[in-house]
Order: sequence, then structure tokens, then C-alpha cells
Amino acid sequence: MNKAARKAERRAAVDARLEDSRLWTEGVLERLLPPAEGPFATLHEAMRYAALGGGKRVRAALVRECCRRFGGQDEDAAPFAAAIECVHAYSLVHDDLPCMDDDDLRRGRPTVHKAWNEAIAVLAGDGLLTHAFLLLSRVRPVGAEAVLVLADAAGSRGMVGGQALDLASNSKAARQQVETIHLAKTAALIGAACELGALAGCARPMERANARDYGVQLGLLFQAIDDVLDCTADAATLGKTPGKDADLDKATLVATVGLEGARAAAALHAQRARDLAASLGAAEGELLHDLPEVLLGRRA
Amino acid sequence: MNKAARKAERRAAVDARLEDSRLWTEGVLERLLPPAEGPFATLHEAMRYAALGGGKRVRAALVRECCRRFGGQDEDAAPFAAAIECVHAYSLVHDDLPCMDDDDLRRGRPTVHKAWNEAIAVLAGDGLLTHAFLLLSRVRPVGAEAVLVLADAAGSRGMVGGQALDLASNSKAARQQVETIHLAKTAALIGAACELGALAGCARPMERANARDYGVQLGLLFQAIDDVLDCTADAATLGKTPGKDADLDKATLVATVGLEGARAAAALHAQRARDLAASLGAAEGELLHDLPEVLLGRRA
Repeated sequence: MNKAARKAERRAAVDARLEDSRLWTEGVLERLLPPAEGPFATLHEAMRYAALGGGKRVRAALVRECCRRFGGQDEDAAPFAAAIECVHAYSLVHDDLPCMDDDDLRRGRPTVHKAWNEAIAVLAGDGLLTHAFLLLSRVRPVGAEAVLVLADAAGSRGMVGGQALDLASNSKAARQQVETIHLAKTAALIGAACELGALAGCARPMERANARDYGVQLGLLFQAIDDVLDCTADAATLGKTPGKDADLDKATLVATVGLEGARAAAALHAQRARDLAASLGAAEGELLHDLPEVLLGRRA
Repeated sequence: MNKAARKAERRAAVDARLEDSRLWTEGVLERLLPPAEGPFATLHEAMRYAALGGGKRVRAALVRECCRRFGGQDEDAAPFAAAIECVHAYSLVHDDLPCMDDDDLRRGRPTVHKAWNEAIAVLAGDGLLTHAFLLLSRVRPVGAEAVLVLADAAGSRGMVGGQALDLASNSKAARQQVETIHLAKTAALIGAACELGALAGCARPMERANARDYGVQLGLLFQAIDDVLDCTADAATLGKTPGKDADLDKATLVATVGLEGARAAAALHAQRARDLAASLGAAEGELLHDLPEVLLGRRA
């Protein structure tokens, strides 16, 4: 089998594995989100709409794979996977608000503030964030540790902080600034997903740190590729309008180091992620090992 | 000393004790909020502005008093008090947004979305909520338990849920509905403050439950009095525009059971709170014992 064929095969295996995790995650969320009934039915319906609204569920897949890597079962990973997806979903609901990115559509459906109203969107986001911590708090004995990992990655020095920096920055930002944004806004939460998976699988502290670093490199890789594709892909391939970053005068890697610089950064993060996957004991053919290469090769 | 004089004396003692706790709380928050420096300085500045923006700090005082009641020290209570005030502050920031209550002023200062902008207000609220859980997660060994108590009270079946119900209701709501709103929107978090204090003081499970119930009754008392004052007080006494509930066609206790019915409900909650204070061992002269009577007698 030649190199291209092996690559296509690995890609297909990663896609199949992600699809399997996606279905598993939908089931977990279905079960662990508050039911759309009782006195708080409307709010719960909006929360479920936001959190069950599709998506590739890469974060939950990483929780599950990292948990497995250290011998944990899917059931051990479930509350951690649900919590990370609740946080991701809440961030999208708040990001879509008119005062933030002002998006009417999310994955082809009306955003929460369009389907209900802005007040419900604010509250549904608040509810999902709080629910994430509720889910983690019930996991014993590592609940407090899990909350610490997630709050750190999602909070004002992590995702929320990155969002604030991103809003305040423009295309004249220095490379250092862009890296801080990518790290805080995206990579910290993906790092937390991997660390929570390791925690769910009862990994040792050093293994947890390696899992987190692996997720951080994946997140940085993901953002670098995003910046490249926004400049190079056409709308049909991308499934969204390209060139949006430049139009909005966004701080991107391409704006600071150019297209080739951004591609080189992506390749570097992919290499680091592969090395860290090896240190976690993930071999070729396993999702944790093959995902960096697949992300690096994505065209949309 | 006659009855009126004794009452005035108890009121003065409660006020002095609350003022002492207010100063203590400001110091605790000053120390436990993220500093307004470094890469996330703007966001942290907005978070600090919101959380250090004054207020009576009754919730933090209840954490401290309940902690003391069971033999805990102020230092044990500090992270719990800070967490509950972060949650309260976040709820005000989001409530003040144009899509919610649309308030330009909070305690005489511009609201966060006026002082910065709406996006920063959404993110500062999100950051404060997440920070509350971060603070609790670091408390060992009861961090997970504390997160569970707070997330339950603040989440979609608690404060956030009550807020959503309140927005969707009107003055034709049934009494049951009004009680559900008061319980979820206000009383649950005050109950959590007392329970967290008890937890910080290493109270036993039954004592924790009594502390929570005490806080819940205080919260219901507070809301009942609020509804009464909105109908009876003049603007100068109240410090804000009275009659706002009726103008906004809000679901209030007065709208469902009338002024006398609301006063009777307040008296009942005060009695229950006093009984629960006694079951916690709080004697006359202690804040936990005297606070219900003082709240019942408040005129603004």
C-alpha cells in the first residue's frame, strides 16, 4: 500500500472513530442534560436545543479516548464528556449573541436568541455553564479536581479571557498576542478535555499533564489550520464564508506570520501533538495518534 | 427597657454586625478576585468592578455567621463567601443587560455594559460565575460538595431557572408560581450561602440541611417584603422607583394574595427562620437569630 492510500485509510479510521464517539456523546448528553419538562421546561428546552444541536463532538471524543488510554470505561468518561460539551455549547450560545458575533444561524439552525430571544440565550448559556460544574461535582472522588481543571480552562484566564482578548484585538496584533488568544480561547478547553479524560481514567499526575499538553497542541493546530483555511478555501469547501477574518480585521496567525508561517506553525503543533501521543502510549491506528495528521490535512 | 427600645437595639446590633462582615467581605474579594493586570487585565478589571461594586453583602455575612456557628474560622469561610458573592455579582451583571432588565445604573454607578460594552458584560458575568467554582474547587476536602451545593442553587433549577420564569410570568400568575419564582430566583442562593457556611464550619449533614432551610426562609421573607415595599414605600425611602412591579405587570405576592396576604406570608417566613435559627443554636443577640425580625421590620 502506498503512502497516500495509508493516509486515506488512517483518515477514514479517524472519521469512523469520531462518528462513533459523536453518537455516544449524543446519548450521554440526552441523558445528562436536564429534561425539557417541569417548571423550568422552557429554559431546559433552550439548553437542550443548544447542547444537542449537532457538531463533531471532538472534545467529548478526546475525553473518551484519553479515559480509555488509561484503562477507564466509557461510563467513567461520560460526565466529563458531557461537562466539556456543555461548556462548549454555552460558549457558542453567548458568542452568537448580537453583542458578540451576531450570528443568526448555527449549524444550519436558528441560534438560541433567534429561536427564543436574547434573554433566554443569556440564561441558557448561564444554565449550561453551571450544569457542567454540577455534573463534575457529582463525580467522586475526583470531582473537585475536575472542577478545578475545567474552571481554569474555561474561565477568565482561559476561554472567556481569550474571547475578550479576541474581541479587543485586530490584525495588527503581534504574534505573541495571537498565540495568547489561540491558547486561551481554544486550546485551553481542548487541553482540559484531554486532562479530564485522563483524570476519568485515573491517570497519574505526569500522564495527566502530558494529556493536557497534547490537547493544547491539538487546539493550537486546529486554530492555525482555521486561519489558513479562512484565507485559502472557497466557500463551497469550507461550508461558511471564507475571508471573514480579514474582513473583520481579526488577529490571526496569517495576518502576523503570513500563510507559509501559519502552515509551518500548524506542522510544528502537529509534530508536538504526535510526540505527546507517543508519550501517552498511543500507537499508529489509534485516534490520539492519528488525529494530528488528519487535522493537519483538513481542507474544510 | 421597653419593647421598642430592645427592638431598636437589636436592629443596631444586626446593622453593626452586617457592616463588620461587609468590610471583611470586601477584603476577601479584593484578595480572591483575579488581579486587574496581565494579558487579561481588561476583563479582570470589569469583573472586579462588578464584584467590588458595593452592596450589603448579606450573603457573604450569612456564610461567615453560619461557619462561625459551627466553630469554623473566618479563613475557613473566605472562599465560600467570595464564591457566593461572585455568583450574586454575575447575576446582576447579566440581569442589567439591555435584553434583560436594561438598567444603566447599579448602586449609583454605570452598569458593566455601560462602563465597558455589552460583550464585556456578558464575558465578565461568565468569568465571575466560572471563578466562583474555581474558588470552591480549591477547598479540600469539601470542594466537590461545595460546588454541588452552589451549582444546584445557582443553576437552571435555581437562580437561572427562576430568572427565566420571572421573565416569562405576569401579574396573573398563581400563588404557587410566584412561590416557585421566589424560591428559585432568590431563596435558593441564600439557602446555599447558609449551607456553604455550615459546610465551611464542618457542620453535620442535618445541621447543614437546617442551615439551608433557614437561608431559604430568609430569602422568601426578603422577597415578600420586597413585594410589599414596592407597593407601599415612597421613592425617597426606597431609594428606587416604587410601583415598578405593577408597571411591568410582574408576578408578585401582592398581585396574587394582596398586601395583607403578602405581609402575613412575610411574618410566617420570619417565624420559620427564627425557629430554624434556634435549631442551629443561635440565641437572641446573635445575627442569625435577630436578622429575620430586622428584615421583617425593614422600611426600604
